[in-house]
Amino acid sequence: MSDKPRIGWVGTGVMGAAMCGHVLDAGYPVTVTTRTRSKARDLLGRGASWAGTPAEVAAASDITCAIVGFPADVREVFLGPSGLLAGASPGDAVVDMTTSEPALAIEIAERADEAGVSAIDAPVSGGDIGARNGTLSIMIGGEEAAVERVRPIFEAMGKTIVRQGGPGAGQHTKAVNQILIATLMIGLSEALLYGQEAGLDLETVMESVSGGAAGSWSLSNYGPRILRGDFEPGFFVDHFVKDMGIALQEAAAMRLPVPGLAMAHELYVSLQAQGLGRKGTQSLILALARLAGVEWRESPAPG
Amino acid sequence: MSDKPRIGWVGTGVMGAAMCGHVLDAGYPVTVTTRTRSKARDLLGRGASWAGTPAEVAAASDITCAIVGFPADVREVFLGPSGLLAGASPGDAVVDMTTSEPALAIEIAERADEAGVSAIDAPVSGGDIGARNGTLSIMIGGEEAAVERVRPIFEAMGKTIVRQGGPGAGQHTKAVNQILIATLMIGLSEALLYGQEAGLDLETVMESVSGGAAGSWSLSNYGPRILRGDFEPGFFVDHFVKDMGIALQEAAAMRLPVPGLAMAHELYVSLQAQGLGRKGTQSLILALARLAGVEWRESPAPG
Repeated sequence: MSDKPRIGWVGTGVMGAAMCGHVLDAGYPVTVTTRTRSKARDLLGRGASWAGTPAEVAAASDITCAIVGFPADVREVFLGPSGLLAGASPGDAVVDMTTSEPALAIEIAERADEAGVSAIDAPVSGGDIGARNGTLSIMIGGEEAAVERVRPIFEAMGKTIVRQGGPGAGQHTKAVNQILIATLMIGLSEALLYGQEAGLDLETVMESVSGGAAGSWSLSNYGPRILRGDFEPGFFVDHFVKDMGIALQEAAAMRLPVPGLAMAHELYVSLQAQGLGRKGTQSLILALARLAGVEWRESPAPG
Repeated sequence: MSDKPRIGWVGTGVMGAAMCGHVLDAGYPVTVTTRTRSKARDLLGRGASWAGTPAEVAAASDITCAIVGFPADVREVFLGPSGLLAGASPGDAVVDMTTSEPALAIEIAERADEAGVSAIDAPVSGGDIGARNGTLSIMIGGEEAAVERVRPIFEAMGKTIVRQGGPGAGQHTKAVNQILIATLMIGLSEALLYGQEAGLDLETVMESVSGGAAGSWSLSNYGPRILRGDFEPGFFVDHFVKDMGIALQEAAAMRLPVPGLAMAHELYVSLQAQGLGRKGTQSLILALARLAGVEWRESPAPG
């Protein structure tokens, strides 16, 4: 029997499957569940055990991580009748890595505390690439001792692992992260459309602007995809709209106007209206092109 | 007598003085003029010659660079009765490094061409730091042969030196650069205010967000200044408003809506309205704090 803690895992989408895979690779015994069992097939083939519900996963594990879709899913997975807290034992830790609501993280932490369980919110940034390469930034809220206990698991999945404060602080930090990206994506889209309409060669423009004061991770990573007409996710428009909605709601609760974030949210909603919710966030340029009544003319390199 | 071309220089503000200093350091004979002679004192002490007008500078030079304030200044310096084209000889080159209007760059190039002179637009990015360290990005529009002739001068001042196309293409590329930065600065300001109001420790938040998908040059360079309450320029709000105004005007002429840029412009105008036009562009957070009716609470480290 391993002396390593037994790890539970809920949610094996693009992010979750890659992250759980790193935990398996690090030699931890893993029990997994997810809504669609076929999405766990690869992990099960690599040695993970299956359980039918989050409660069963928690019952079989010392530390359980979840990364699911929306706050309603988080509520069900943690607090529902077959949820993690229904199966966890005193001394266990449960970790929500979904981008979700700070207030819900606090509620889960309070309910967990009543059961003698530690709850941690630990949303991530870095996208599918970061999940695959184990280079995620993990933003953590929770009691310090519990966070230290879980840290080796985080280290298997990420590169930048920072505790930001008590329960909810991880989610608030993720909101900061998404506010930074959201408005930046408007500028990125407008700037590339401007360059196209001005008749510039955008590959050459990228040489001038990407390494300097206008440079950003998004420009370096999404710019080339946009130039070749690649709008595949990456990070789903639908999930980004959810994240921005949470940040807007939190900001409004603080009486903090965030006009740039609000504009980004609306433009991304217009992408959903065009049926592009399952495309990547770099698709924002298509919303602005539509607003301008122009075509985004870059197209995929000939196969 | 030097076999190097004789260089003329018009405009010795924060950017111009540093850039002209690099040309002097590279061993070129330099003739300089500027509106306020005292601002050229250091360059004159290092061997530059003085001339009374741009026309006189051009008459004494093979290649003359100008970096002044606003498009009206550019028009006067290049096309005015005592302007560069009034003094230049056939075969000379004149280079506008001011961020100015693409249409004006084209007009200057046409007028220069009639006089047998080559005109180049070559605005820069990288700020005061880039100017001092010789690491500017120089975005160039003009005929290829003329650009190649001037390239060694650019290499004395900058690191990323890219010809973007014919006359005006440098200015259009600079507009792309400023559109990228403008909207990003809204997100940066909103994100830090959100973090403050959520009660996060912003130094710790920076550890989580600056190296990942939300990362940018502006976050890494302006973030720490904002956190310590340092709003000194850098890059003047007044100049950024000018740059954004040019980009808005060009975008409107193309019938390209740029709502993010427009919002950034308006928020920066509100800074001017607060008397903060001579502060640095990172001051945008003060406009958003005012909108929220909150204080930006970070303050300079105790002296």
